[in-house]
Amino acid sequence: MSRESAFIDRLREIATHPAARGLRDDAAVLGGLVLTHDMIVEGVHFLPHDPPEDVAWKLVATNLSDLAAKGARPVGALLGCGLGGADEDWDYMFLSGLKTACERFALPLLGGDTVSMPRGAPRTFGLTALGAGSPDAPARDGAGPDDILWVTGTIGDAGLGLAIAQGEDGPRALIDRYRRPEPRLEAGRAIAPLAHAMMDVSDGLLIDASRMAEASGVGLNMDLDAVPLSALAIGHAGEDRAARLRAATAGDDYELLFATPATAAEDILRLRQDLGLRITLVGRFRLWPGLSVHDVEGMVPLPRRLGYEHDRR
Amino acid sequence: MSRESAFIDRLREIATHPAARGLRDDAAVLGGLVLTHDMIVEGVHFLPHDPPEDVAWKLVATNLSDLAAKGARPVGALLGCGLGGADEDWDYMFLSGLKTACERFALPLLGGDTVSMPRGAPRTFGLTALGAGSPDAPARDGAGPDDILWVTGTIGDAGLGLAIAQGEDGPRALIDRYRRPEPRLEAGRAIAPLAHAMMDVSDGLLIDASRMAEASGVGLNMDLDAVPLSALAIGHAGEDRAARLRAATAGDDYELLFATPATAAEDILRLRQDLGLRITLVGRFRLWPGLSVHDVEGMVPLPRRLGYEHDRR
Repeated sequence: MSRESAFIDRLREIATHPAARGLRDDAAVLGGLVLTHDMIVEGVHFLPHDPPEDVAWKLVATNLSDLAAKGARPVGALLGCGLGGADEDWDYMFLSGLKTACERFALPLLGGDTVSMPRGAPRTFGLTALGAGSPDAPARDGAGPDDILWVTGTIGDAGLGLAIAQGEDGPRALIDRYRRPEPRLEAGRAIAPLAHAMMDVSDGLLIDASRMAEASGVGLNMDLDAVPLSALAIGHAGEDRAARLRAATAGDDYELLFATPATAAEDILRLRQDLGLRITLVGRFRLWPGLSVHDVEGMVPLPRRLGYEHDRR
Repeated sequence: MSRESAFIDRLREIATHPAARGLRDDAAVLGGLVLTHDMIVEGVHFLPHDPPEDVAWKLVATNLSDLAAKGARPVGALLGCGLGGADEDWDYMFLSGLKTACERFALPLLGGDTVSMPRGAPRTFGLTALGAGSPDAPARDGAGPDDILWVTGTIGDAGLGLAIAQGEDGPRALIDRYRRPEPRLEAGRAIAPLAHAMMDVSDGLLIDASRMAEASGVGLNMDLDAVPLSALAIGHAGEDRAARLRAATAGDDYELLFATPATAAEDILRLRQDLGLRITLVGRFRLWPGLSVHDVEGMVPLPRRLGYEHDRR
């Protein structure tokens, strides 16, 4: 077990309040308040040469994605800044990206703390986002054995974008999907009342879907052919089994993954139209545990790596 | 101007929501919610050889002191942990101190994030504390020119404790006052409805009092002889003018400093009895700006350093 996992296990012994949801959900839900905190560290979550505006955007967007997954409306944020490096221009470009993101999502910046890291230490940021939602916000462990699994938007663009940012040839528009994810706030609020379970896809569709199934104590069969790919992604990487597996195991999508009863399908299809957003049926839960994946050719052997696993870092 | 101050000035241009209070208060106040976030970094706010239990306690206690200064009751916290160093025992001692503090203050740990810092980077923690208070929570800028200034508890113990922790001879009980501050939560709730302005004393009595006066657009005359010293502090360092100036310019007290109309004096004295806590009248505000200090011998020349100034770090 990694040091982080062992630490979080011990934290669980302290975080016994029901609102903490056993530290296993995207966010804490305290009455109608939804709360999340993410930390990003230079050299771990972003690189010194990443555009600072994008670092700030992504910090805000990924936190808001956690709120979106609980169907919450953002009401404010607190920012912890550990400034570092010799380049003060970096700070101002970061602030410019922060301003853009706060304006884009109508997110009031309410407070926080700013400190200087010791010389040579990495820049470190923490963002707490606060949302207004329902005390019944969908958890990630509520999927039933007869439920069906949906995902918003398209999957795999960010993973391709990361590879392109790292030097692979390909369209720059995919890099934006990696650097400037769009939290599905409106969709999350519309979907939450219909969902038995909801989470965001941050580590990869297959791994996150299997986590939802496991947390819910059910199994899952996914249709690889149904995994929604963008035209850009298909143009760049194709849509054969290998391309689909690559998309379904790449991270950083920040789309919403949710379970509903099969009877809710018509409501979801109507929502899709209202929101003007792709929402795709990608799997069915079942009683017996485990994940299986199929496509038109039959059962798909599971890749060794289903997505980004924090424990194996 | 320091890099931090310049950064915070730019942050203010983003944090325009009234709840942010211009980033000049101890906490944000959003309706009945009071929110604060503090960040601590190894090598800046604590040292590698500081007891990890005390590091955790102080992180919790200083955040709750911000809530106390707004008269709020703690309802939960989110913790960001950047783990570092080779010594995993440190992590568990930190968690043990965290558990002690959360239990002591009935503070539910609701969530957060745990990451590993890159090799060699300092341990870094961020705590967001959430409180329930009044939308009219006292700000630090509400003191009027005829108000009087009070402080809870005793002043200067933590400063003496820090010197003893660093090798000076003296009673170990003073070290506890430095390492294990007690947020004045009960007192804060009782005082808030009576206070025109309130803040906690974290950087030193003189500097924090002068900040309250400046923020309120008034001046202040303080009585150095009135500054409340503990018997321990007097036994260790005496109570002459120099000892009192040392106490009034040392930081880390985490007592409450507040302004009331002179007519509230009787109520405060009654509160003092109910709470069983020293509450001492230490100054009077006035119309003309600036800080002056006197004692029985007359005007006290102001020391060059009124307390801990972040800008001069």
